[in-house]
Amino acid sequence: MKSVVIASLVAGSLVLSAGMLLRDGSAKELAGGLGARVFVVERESGSLAIYDLEQRKLLPRRISGLGNLNHAVMTFSRDLKYGFLATRSGKLSRIDLENMSAAGEVYTSKNSIDIAVSQDGRFVAAAEYAPGGVTILDAKTLAVRKRLRTTVTRDGRTIDSRATGIVDVPGNRFACVLMEGAEVWIIDASRDDFPVEHRIPVTRDEPYDAMITPDGRYYVVGHIGSDQVSVIDLSWPQNGAKSVLLRDAGELYDRKTPVKLPHLAAWAVARDKVFVPLVGEARLAILDRWTWQYRGSVPLRGHPVYAIRSPHEREIWVSFSGEANDRYVQVVDVETLAIKDTIDVGGRIYHMDFTPRGSHVLVSANKDNKLVLVNGTTHAVEDVEDLQSPSGIFGPWRAFTIGL
Amino acid sequence: MKSVVIASLVAGSLVLSAGMLLRDGSAKELAGGLGARVFVVERESGSLAIYDLEQRKLLPRRISGLGNLNHAVMTFSRDLKYGFLATRSGKLSRIDLENMSAAGEVYTSKNSIDIAVSQDGRFVAAAEYAPGGVTILDAKTLAVRKRLRTTVTRDGRTIDSRATGIVDVPGNRFACVLMEGAEVWIIDASRDDFPVEHRIPVTRDEPYDAMITPDGRYYVVGHIGSDQVSVIDLSWPQNGAKSVLLRDAGELYDRKTPVKLPHLAAWAVARDKVFVPLVGEARLAILDRWTWQYRGSVPLRGHPVYAIRSPHEREIWVSFSGEANDRYVQVVDVETLAIKDTIDVGGRIYHMDFTPRGSHVLVSANKDNKLVLVNGTTHAVEDVEDLQSPSGIFGPWRAFTIGL
Repeated sequence: MKSVVIASLVAGSLVLSAGMLLRDGSAKELAGGLGARVFVVERESGSLAIYDLEQRKLLPRRISGLGNLNHAVMTFSRDLKYGFLATRSGKLSRIDLENMSAAGEVYTSKNSIDIAVSQDGRFVAAAEYAPGGVTILDAKTLAVRKRLRTTVTRDGRTIDSRATGIVDVPGNRFACVLMEGAEVWIIDASRDDFPVEHRIPVTRDEPYDAMITPDGRYYVVGHIGSDQVSVIDLSWPQNGAKSVLLRDAGELYDRKTPVKLPHLAAWAVARDKVFVPLVGEARLAILDRWTWQYRGSVPLRGHPVYAIRSPHEREIWVSFSGEANDRYVQVVDVETLAIKDTIDVGGRIYHMDFTPRGSHVLVSANKDNKLVLVNGTTHAVEDVEDLQSPSGIFGPWRAFTIGL
Repeated sequence: MKSVVIASLVAGSLVLSAGMLLRDGSAKELAGGLGARVFVVERESGSLAIYDLEQRKLLPRRISGLGNLNHAVMTFSRDLKYGFLATRSGKLSRIDLENMSAAGEVYTSKNSIDIAVSQDGRFVAAAEYAPGGVTILDAKTLAVRKRLRTTVTRDGRTIDSRATGIVDVPGNRFACVLMEGAEVWIIDASRDDFPVEHRIPVTRDEPYDAMITPDGRYYVVGHIGSDQVSVIDLSWPQNGAKSVLLRDAGELYDRKTPVKLPHLAAWAVARDKVFVPLVGEARLAILDRWTWQYRGSVPLRGHPVYAIRSPHEREIWVSFSGEANDRYVQVVDVETLAIKDTIDVGGRIYHMDFTPRGSHVLVSANKDNKLVLVNGTTHAVEDVEDLQSPSGIFGPWRAFTIGL
């Protein structure tokens, strides 16, 4: 009924602006609720598709022209007015969640990799490759509030280190890691000058990515080609980083085996365990959540890429690399470590995300150009939608989650 | 600018309906974003006030006429279109989150106590005292889908037991406890007939309230006047409930000490511990999160009422009963168990809630008629708003949280 009233109003009025048309168009088209609208990166076309979980269909509208969306991550303002996207072209795009349209963009660098919203909701920080640094913007106006240069001296040369792995951390701080600098920086987002409060050295062994545990307690830095990671207890940053081995210390280490860490967002923390996909090996390593000691591993059908926990922490869902395996998800029982199920979802799974209470899982099958909705309890496929080269999946609940 | 466009449109149009006026009125008045709007129960006036966390002010609009809001709990639809409120007058009220106005009501009983949204977002369940039972509604239409009678035989009499403590649990189920029936019911919300899948007996010692751990793993039932609670591992409901002691088994138990459990939502789960306010004693009991064994206690300045965890699980914030203490919050360090701070917030604190990333805490000071915004890191009071007899505080992030 509401849409009928609006339509007659549009027809009978002479004072319409483009903005108003858009707004009314939205009211009709976007009948669903904001909380059920999930954004899916369409990598090749540089666009965002929007899936409505309640209506179980894609919105007719796409948001296009967003730039190079390789490894693009989307975050949300805590008032759910905006989404933010940092792109490999250095553009930070803002999405208006009411109109589901682009609402401002800023070039903060030539190549940005990661993005975070401060815990108080006031600032957006982008981690950048070229030039290396961190740019902090006002979330409302998109004005640049601070450019932090990540200048370091390496082998006698002064360079601006690439920065990555930026997240919000407890105390209204940001954390990121300097790749050439081999330091984790803790930045105080509560002070006008955004001081770097801690500079924590990590192994100078090509740090390339980082993750934070869901409780905001530990910040973990991966090193390329290494079977060790650096772990910082954010409750005691002054204690520095400790090195953690991703295999049994007593185990014979075959140096010919390719050991490469995947994107660290692919680690899953559930109950007292951390599940780590070991790329190049057909297993998940298990670390103790509190001591970070290696506890064993779970054999899998192929080389794992992504591991995510169910919200109830009973299951870990794992995706794979390689044509023989990349259409399957294996479900690992957190307690027994048994494989509970193997689900055929679709070719080249790039991303998975649980709905926040765990009833469903959204999966992007990149090769098949499908977005798939899987029931979290029965594991049945309940909906399949056509998309263009789907990749990352980002729900509005990220607005309310530490580290996302 | 947008509001100006709308204003001129309204002035130039002759086809306005009341609904349209409301909608445009909302657009101007409610300039903030949905994610930052927190509802506060005003108990005496039976109304909801709305606080905008970004603007740090109350919206001019109140939602009134909601009935008896004693112990009222508000839940949210997962698409964030609606809030739901079950009242002691038996009325279930729906709140439209776009217009911030009442949008439907149903009398499901003469006295309802608790409410939950199914994990798939399709249904709302109310637990009821009079007549005892559970009513399940379609979340979109508010049509009654099922009335579950909680008929039990007690002392030879057949009665409809009061039901309480209803929550969503993993697997798209609901759980509740029957007070006279002394049973926990697990209801399958994925099947059209909403079968009671498990009936789990608990001690027949006046069960009166229940809580679920944040991971959806354990359902805990309190018994009036008892120092024991019943704990059900929801991964293995067929194993039944186990009795858990809230004090050291070896400790001499003074039977003259009044032992009464507060509302079980007042229990805080952080890291590997559960913090339990022991009413009538000036301490928090600590249980092991996994074994539920008594681990010790934390002495406090008074009798605790509410304990909540910070989202980063580093701190427990505790409120108190009794005029000498009820204006203070004590902050307990989860690891060291030391009292880190005592904050003077305002008379008769009824409720506290952290913003989801932990930057701030909202506190209602009922006697002083204040809503207080406290910085989660510095513990400084940053905003104070006048309200009428404020009580429960409910943020939209509850839409995305198991058990809330």
